[in-house]
Amino acid sequence: MPTIKNKKIISSTDLFTIKKLDIEFKNNVHRKYEVVSGKGHGAVMIIPFENNTFYFIKEFAAGINDYAVSFPKGRIDDGESMFEAANRELQEEIGYKSDKLSHIFTLSLAPGYIDHDTHIILAQELSVSKLDGDEPEELEVIQCELSKVDTLIQEKKNNMESRAIACVYLFQNHINLKK
Amino acid sequence: MPTIKNKKIISSTDLFTIKKLDIEFKNNVHRKYEVVSGKGHGAVMIIPFENNTFYFIKEFAAGINDYAVSFPKGRIDDGESMFEAANRELQEEIGYKSDKLSHIFTLSLAPGYIDHDTHIILAQELSVSKLDGDEPEELEVIQCELSKVDTLIQEKKNNMESRAIACVYLFQNHINLKK
Repeated sequence: MPTIKNKKIISSTDLFTIKKLDIEFKNNVHRKYEVVSGKGHGAVMIIPFENNTFYFIKEFAAGINDYAVSFPKGRIDDGESMFEAANRELQEEIGYKSDKLSHIFTLSLAPGYIDHDTHIILAQELSVSKLDGDEPEELEVIQCELSKVDTLIQEKKNNMESRAIACVYLFQNHINLKK
Repeated sequence: MPTIKNKKIISSTDLFTIKKLDIEFKNNVHRKYEVVSGKGHGAVMIIPFENNTFYFIKEFAAGINDYAVSFPKGRIDDGESMFEAANRELQEEIGYKSDKLSHIFTLSLAPGYIDHDTHIILAQELSVSKLDGDEPEELEVIQCELSKVDTLIQEKKNNMESRAIACVYLFQNHINLKK
């Protein structure tokens, strides 16, 4: 394994830390890297699935200054398990809770330069239950049948993010494995 | 659409900029956001596919301090098209060039707080051609037949990133659309 020879924080904001790393490889080559970390305990992305239908959300995304379609998601708060965070975000963002949560994968975003894990939680057995969240406006919920999800993703104007597309793949893989 | 009422750079390093945004929603609610931007012209991720086989790479990923399996990828340099960048990265990272490049999608990473596009390029009709890149060590190339890619991804120890998993899905979708 390459060795970290030096590591220092070069920037720290309310939400992010940027570190500069000096890495030594086995061949004695040194390289400098910058790594962005989010503060906190990682995030969950939830795949709500009931009656052969996915529940997506459409939410304002400041990074692209536009609305983006994705699955419900959010940070894990202090003291929460990933399942507690998933059920809280579900109730805040789509107004349902789940009685059957399964962790199916943990995704990295861009491991070359971001230190951030997203735990992917499949949520089934949904029932109506609303919690107030910290969203600045009501989120639009988009229901999409399993058979139509390829078409939804191909409509690129929806600004689907890599994690949501990976979720659809992982869901299909998970279902196939259980057959 | 929500309106950006204020925007300022709060951090700038060699590779990243962090901006603070004050966004006003239609209901007059204000929210502050932090957005991380990479410097440059975005990135390409290339799906090399020949004889029913994908070519992955295994590369040290500083963000997770471990090796990660992904597709060849890299920044678009000044003056390069996305296709030129794709063919350069292919030759640097796996030692092949492609005579048939197709842009199949543009992915965002985490549009809520990262301003970064990755253009997904399918590369076919490969032939041996090596360019020296800026990699600190030789990359391991992992060939994987189409029929075995689900298993490769399920071996979570490979640290597959969200974009690479999304690529496999988008590839399958692209091939199905052409049938």
